[in-house]
Amino acid sequence: MTALFSAGIPAAIGEPLLQRFLRLRSLTEALCDPLSDAEASAQSMPDASPAKWHLAHTTWFFETFVLRDHLPGYRQFNSQYPYLFNSYYEAEGARVARASRGLLIRPSIEEIYDYRAHVNFRLAAAWSDLSPRAKELIELGCHHEEQHQELIVMDLQHLMHSSPLQATPWPPMHSSQSQQRGTMSWIEREAGLVSIGADGDGFVFDCERPRHRAWLDPYALADRLVTNREWRDFIDDSGYRNPALWLSDGWAWVNAQQIAAPQYWRKSADGEWGQSFGLGGWSDIRMDAPVCHVSYYEADAYARWAGARLPTEPEWESAAESCDSSSGTFLDGPGAVAPKADLGGHGLRQLFGDVWEWTASAFLGHPGFRAEAGAIGEYNGKFMSGQFVLKGGSCATPRGHVRASYRNFFYPHQRWQFAGVRLARSR
Amino acid sequence: MTALFSAGIPAAIGEPLLQRFLRLRSLTEALCDPLSDAEASAQSMPDASPAKWHLAHTTWFFETFVLRDHLPGYRQFNSQYPYLFNSYYEAEGARVARASRGLLIRPSIEEIYDYRAHVNFRLAAAWSDLSPRAKELIELGCHHEEQHQELIVMDLQHLMHSSPLQATPWPPMHSSQSQQRGTMSWIEREAGLVSIGADGDGFVFDCERPRHRAWLDPYALADRLVTNREWRDFIDDSGYRNPALWLSDGWAWVNAQQIAAPQYWRKSADGEWGQSFGLGGWSDIRMDAPVCHVSYYEADAYARWAGARLPTEPEWESAAESCDSSSGTFLDGPGAVAPKADLGGHGLRQLFGDVWEWTASAFLGHPGFRAEAGAIGEYNGKFMSGQFVLKGGSCATPRGHVRASYRNFFYPHQRWQFAGVRLARSR
Amino acid sequence: MTALFSAGIPAAIGEPLLQRFLRLRSLTEALCDPLSDAEASAQSMPDASPAKWHLAHTTWFFETFVLRDHLPGYRQFNSQYPYLFNSYYEAEGARVARASRGLLIRPSIEEIYDYRAHVNFRLAAAWSDLSPRAKELIELGCHHEEQHQELIVMDLQHLMHSSPLQATPWPPMHSSQSQQRGTMSWIEREAGLVSIGADGDGFVFDCERPRHRAWLDPYALADRLVTNREWRDFIDDSGYRNPALWLSDGWAWVNAQQIAAPQYWRKSADGEWGQSFGLGGWSDIRMDAPVCHVSYYEADAYARWAGARLPTEPEWESAAESCDSSSGTFLDGPGAVAPKADLGGHGLRQLFGDVWEWTASAFLGHPGFRAEAGAIGEYNGKFMSGQFVLKGGSCATPRGHVRASYRNFFYPHQRWQFAGVRLARSR
Amino acid sequence: MTALFSAGIPAAIGEPLLQRFLRLRSLTEALCDPLSDAEASAQSMPDASPAKWHLAHTTWFFETFVLRDHLPGYRQFNSQYPYLFNSYYEAEGARVARASRGLLIRPSIEEIYDYRAHVNFRLAAAWSDLSPRAKELIELGCHHEEQHQELIVMDLQHLMHSSPLQATPWPPMHSSQSQQRGTMSWIEREAGLVSIGADGDGFVFDCERPRHRAWLDPYALADRLVTNREWRDFIDDSGYRNPALWLSDGWAWVNAQQIAAPQYWRKSADGEWGQSFGLGGWSDIRMDAPVCHVSYYEADAYARWAGARLPTEPEWESAAESCDSSSGTFLDGPGAVAPKADLGGHGLRQLFGDVWEWTASAFLGHPGFRAEAGAIGEYNGKFMSGQFVLKGGSCATPRGHVRASYRNFFYPHQRWQFAGVRLARSR
Repeated sequence: MTALFSAGIPAAIGEPLLQRFLRLRSLTEALCDPLSDAEASAQSMPDASPAKWHLAHTTWFFETFVLRDHLPGYRQFNSQYPYLFNSYYEAEGARVARASRGLLIRPSIEEIYDYRAHVNFRLAAAWSDLSPRAKELIELGCHHEEQHQELIVMDLQHLMHSSPLQATPWPPMHSSQSQQRGTMSWIEREAGLVSIGADGDGFVFDCERPRHRAWLDPYALADRLVTNREWRDFIDDSGYRNPALWLSDGWAWVNAQQIAAPQYWRKSADGEWGQSFGLGGWSDIRMDAPVCHVSYYEADAYARWAGARLPTEPEWESAAESCDSSSGTFLDGPGAVAPKADLGGHGLRQLFGDVWEWTASAFLGHPGFRAEAGAIGEYNGKFMSGQFVLKGGSCATPRGHVRASYRNFFYPHQRWQFAGVRLARSR
Repeated sequence: MTALFSAGIPAAIGEPLLQRFLRLRSLTEALCDPLSDAEASAQSMPDASPAKWHLAHTTWFFETFVLRDHLPGYRQFNSQYPYLFNSYYEAEGARVARASRGLLIRPSIEEIYDYRAHVNFRLAAAWSDLSPRAKELIELGCHHEEQHQELIVMDLQHLMHSSPLQATPWPPMHSSQSQQRGTMSWIEREAGLVSIGADGDGFVFDCERPRHRAWLDPYALADRLVTNREWRDFIDDSGYRNPALWLSDGWAWVNAQQIAAPQYWRKSADGEWGQSFGLGGWSDIRMDAPVCHVSYYEADAYARWAGARLPTEPEWESAAESCDSSSGTFLDGPGAVAPKADLGGHGLRQLFGDVWEWTASAFLGHPGFRAEAGAIGEYNGKFMSGQFVLKGGSCATPRGHVRASYRNFFYPHQRWQFAGVRLARSR
Repeated sequence: MTALFSAGIPAAIGEPLLQRFLRLRSLTEALCDPLSDAEASAQSMPDASPAKWHLAHTTWFFETFVLRDHLPGYRQFNSQYPYLFNSYYEAEGARVARASRGLLIRPSIEEIYDYRAHVNFRLAAAWSDLSPRAKELIELGCHHEEQHQELIVMDLQHLMHSSPLQATPWPPMHSSQSQQRGTMSWIEREAGLVSIGADGDGFVFDCERPRHRAWLDPYALADRLVTNREWRDFIDDSGYRNPALWLSDGWAWVNAQQIAAPQYWRKSADGEWGQSFGLGGWSDIRMDAPVCHVSYYEADAYARWAGARLPTEPEWESAAESCDSSSGTFLDGPGAVAPKADLGGHGLRQLFGDVWEWTASAFLGHPGFRAEAGAIGEYNGKFMSGQFVLKGGSCATPRGHVRASYRNFFYPHQRWQFAGVRLARSR
Repeated sequence: MTALFSAGIPAAIGEPLLQRFLRLRSLTEALCDPLSDAEASAQSMPDASPAKWHLAHTTWFFETFVLRDHLPGYRQFNSQYPYLFNSYYEAEGARVARASRGLLIRPSIEEIYDYRAHVNFRLAAAWSDLSPRAKELIELGCHHEEQHQELIVMDLQHLMHSSPLQATPWPPMHSSQSQQRGTMSWIEREAGLVSIGADGDGFVFDCERPRHRAWLDPYALADRLVTNREWRDFIDDSGYRNPALWLSDGWAWVNAQQIAAPQYWRKSADGEWGQSFGLGGWSDIRMDAPVCHVSYYEADAYARWAGARLPTEPEWESAAESCDSSSGTFLDGPGAVAPKADLGGHGLRQLFGDVWEWTASAFLGHPGFRAEAGAIGEYNGKFMSGQFVLKGGSCATPRGHVRASYRNFFYPHQRWQFAGVRLARSR
């Protein structure tokens, strides 16, 4: 691992946004610290990227949209990096095909760490010259890098699970099998016209805006997440083999991919689904913990089996707005992560952190949504077809990253993200 | 073409529902009348089915859900037909894979016509013994067969376009190139809480229910559809080559499939996109007619290029509720069909008929939606992922089939249906 | 079925080559006579073609290479037919993609029969004006059409097996289960320099030439073909599940395609492989008949399992040269065909007819081979990579079509042709 | 890079076979020495393997077939390595799928070097206890590792060419553009019965045996290889766009893959094919050097264009038997390699080294060929379908590895090996 700066200590070191920037950059490196160059370079599926790429891409974001665009005379660290580390910004030109990121044998991870230190230093050194707009973009870049921190965790877990030895450089989590088994309760909510979406001054992504009204019929939300124990009941009741429970596309997916359990589960010696894989390797499934790594198709089928349904985004968001989005099981440092068992109590629990909660809402623009102009405008708006919204963050989301209005989105078959299920019902 | 009945004239011939049933069945056969056995048996893509299959599947629907389930002692016409002509009802057992329907070399189209006459006769002859529930299912079967009438038109157009000779058994349409070119106007609508979805007693599909409230911010709808002339402007302005206009999945689709114009368009001798293919063969594009056979990706890109957006389903439906859903350009008989040019006027025009209008709304359940139990419940609910809603019917939709609450749905890349674009904007 | 001629009886009707031409053309139509337009138009896999296409393509061959090229002033029957019915002659211009032949919904089979009668008549009427070269091409066209007669049988069998009802328009074969089970004997042959390949004046395909010398080490050939009973022993001994028996590509094929028996076999009610499908439908496997519809991979694996090997082409041809290539089980008329059980005796039996015999020789040019110039030269030479030679003809080969020097060729995974196995060994 | 041994210097160090073993092992490591862990771990296509895998697999070969099978009490270095580093030996159990070798993020290249040193040491230390059979297997293992040395060169070249930066850790070759342009001459050879294939005591692979007779008609071989300049003439004469020159499968390949030049060629700024890529990066094409990295399809098409053909294996081998197979342009150490321009002279030149020469012979067993028993028997025999023989070795083949009887084999579309063309003709 490298130094945070390529040279000296910049004068602006005490600025709060700069402090936040530096802490964040440091966490990204801590997440990757134990990786060898080979581990940081491999790609296990087109949806996932090598850790090296994440380290560089987040840096390219700051270099391009802050240093290049707002620091007169800035010269690129390396003229080939835009080609290598642009993700999907059409406005920023050609780039390496996503499925070929595993061929980025160079630059080495050491060169990437140097790149990071260089951009850190130049950005910090130029601090007092940066315009308010540049600082807005730094803020955006920080939130962007937090998203990639979660992707690093997801992608490494997928890579290590796909690798022949399934070895991981992190220790297993201490796993205490809690024995209590709380009954799920329904939290009823009245009908009415609500407002959701973001307004005000704090940072939000463009797709969270504008704040707008929505009518809600009476509904109820489960007070906690669906657990692994409950999911095993679903499996034992032939949940994966009963077409009446599934969406048509989901049933085709289950059969084509031969899906029979959440991703990363395997059977124990006793023939039961008893173990799951994480960044700490294989361990026993904690039955009271929330189920994780399920697709929308699975979440929807489970809800139907349970005689319930998934919440819509307005239902979820309206209920969550008054809750503290920073407390819960989030990513605080490097190493294995996992959602935690509900400890019981009153009211809605596990709303933030633990697992992303699938909603029954497609990821589309809020009424009045407008993407920003230019490359930055490609951030969210161009993904508004075919995906579903997930809410609340997960144990792999950096603490402080999410809000009630935060909108994550994945295709209905994807499940390498930390996604689980909260039930809802009408009336 | 065969007789409507396999024997005699049933006594109940004067019953209105039976009359409707018989007229409808007759129209289906009229649509297929000029087809040879080979033309009625070929399949040009997995999404499309042979005409022979449509003729038989709609008949299987009546035979299974009415005669088998409600007529004691009824014996199947042919014990193999359920395997051959079930479409996707998991609850009804095994069936021919969709992509293999082109291998249905038997039964011949003559045998299918006999099957139709047999079921027609048995159903009519049993009329006075049928329960109210059976008659509800006949009503459903009629609406179901109307949907397949439109599919027959779509699938035959695709087949004949795909066939080497591109020959069609129907005469070309008389095409009058209208020269007027009306300016599109915006019809403004106020904010407010509206109710949409179906209630009451008339027939509707399950997915149109229940009626529910929705909040609408102020918006405006274009008073007419986007025309072919306007679409050519989009092409001429590099609409298909500018990634900033496209959804990410749409841009991938445009490039992978090399899309450069609506489906069924080709260039004329002058190098311009000047001709389109329909059931009457190739003809000159009528520039004032609505553009047709565009995908959601194209509709969305066009709207962005035009500085507008697509309407949401509640916006469209709320505006359309007070209009006559039976007047407009619909399917009234066999032969070539095409949307017609707007003749100008005041208020919203071309809402019903002409072309299905893409909305910006994903096809999901209305609040409180519940699918019916059993096989009939597979009709709509299991398709609620990944598709978008289209409204209003088309020139290939049988007159009287649609309503304001009617919900059609297709994947965003599909465009062999008669789909076009009405613009909307916020504020 | 149509008349042989479109008009009158030509004067040259008594000419032997014309007589042969007419008998042959008539047989092709007899093979297709019971087919409906739909049955004649469907395509069950890219390797197979619709019967309608075969009927037209063989006619296009005569029309193009004889009438067009050798009859001054001849006008094409239909200017679109060359595009529709050229198979693979690059020198003859564009053509329908092979995998799209199932979309040839027009022309109808009746129009194709008219086309055939027209070309028959024009060719016969012009007989006395035709040059010797034109008559050579008629000779070639006759052999070409005989090849397509066998393809019609193969392709129809595949289509009817693939179709949902598996119905066939022909009666089942009379099947007498012979009980005798002859032991296979080895026919030993000495080492020496032999000559193989064709010379002399009779018709042969270009790839059979030139006659050339080859050295053979001492070898032995089985006196009869491998039987279905012996093949069941191979299956029962886990032949399809033992990788040590298989070529690497073959093992990949067996696993990817889940191959467990010859094509067209299925298990009977007793769980044994007991039935096979032919143009007469499903029937019990005749255990003493030669195994049929096996790929090169299977033939090679079987031979290894049996402690033997496949013969090379020179070994087979050298042994077969003195035998009568017209006697044996060949195609003599329309209907179901099948190889027959060996009746015992002395010397090599079943060499000609019954099943094509896979050799261990790749299909490459004989020493000194030169393809003809022009389109005709595309007949064989351009297929000389990746395929293996088969010898001797089959029960689906028109009687009189093959010779000892005749070279058939297929890819090692193909098996819809009537192919079986004769064992060989060295020393 | 690691020490050759994991401990001490073994007593048998002076034994010739041991000396050879050690030199060879050392060269393999020298080839990989400049590679980072990431460079040694990436896989650019399923046909190619990571360098790390080659380093380990060749070691696994010695460990398994010598130490495990012939050294009582030997314990595996790591019990997971057989799963990781078995290539295709079905008899040796499960293994990592070939296309997933790029996910071998562990063990690290350092661990692999330790594995190599361990096996080196154990084998050397046990030398005096090893049976003659064990030493035969060491001999085989040395030849096996030499094959992988060539694969390392091929696979690295492919990887670095596929990687976004196309950077290589080796210096470019010194390139002297020779101006002489020798005319190709024909070396005529008489007809006769020849003997080819290996006999005697020296090491050969099983597929080189047995020695056997073959008849050759009179033929001529080109005295030198086809050059890049001549290949450019072929391109300029539309060689890649004229279907008459190509095998049918080759023409499909050219069109599907859009092939227009040898692999690793690109156009210079002047629009001409002027540069090629090697382990030293991009450099100008040396016009008098032999063309390299062409497929069988290309070689065959070129020969047809040139009015010639490719030699058969017996023709080539018979002519080459009396030549020195150790002199020529071979691999002598690490770094960039390339075939050299012919310097002129009399008789057959460039037979050995420079480029593998495609023959017109399929890779099949020689008459009387028998594979060895057990896993070792999977070495060559199971690849005897669909591939063609190449002769003579290349600039990437370790010096001393090949013989006249040596048989290399590739599929006709493959061309990442160093393959070129020598013309032949009949008469």
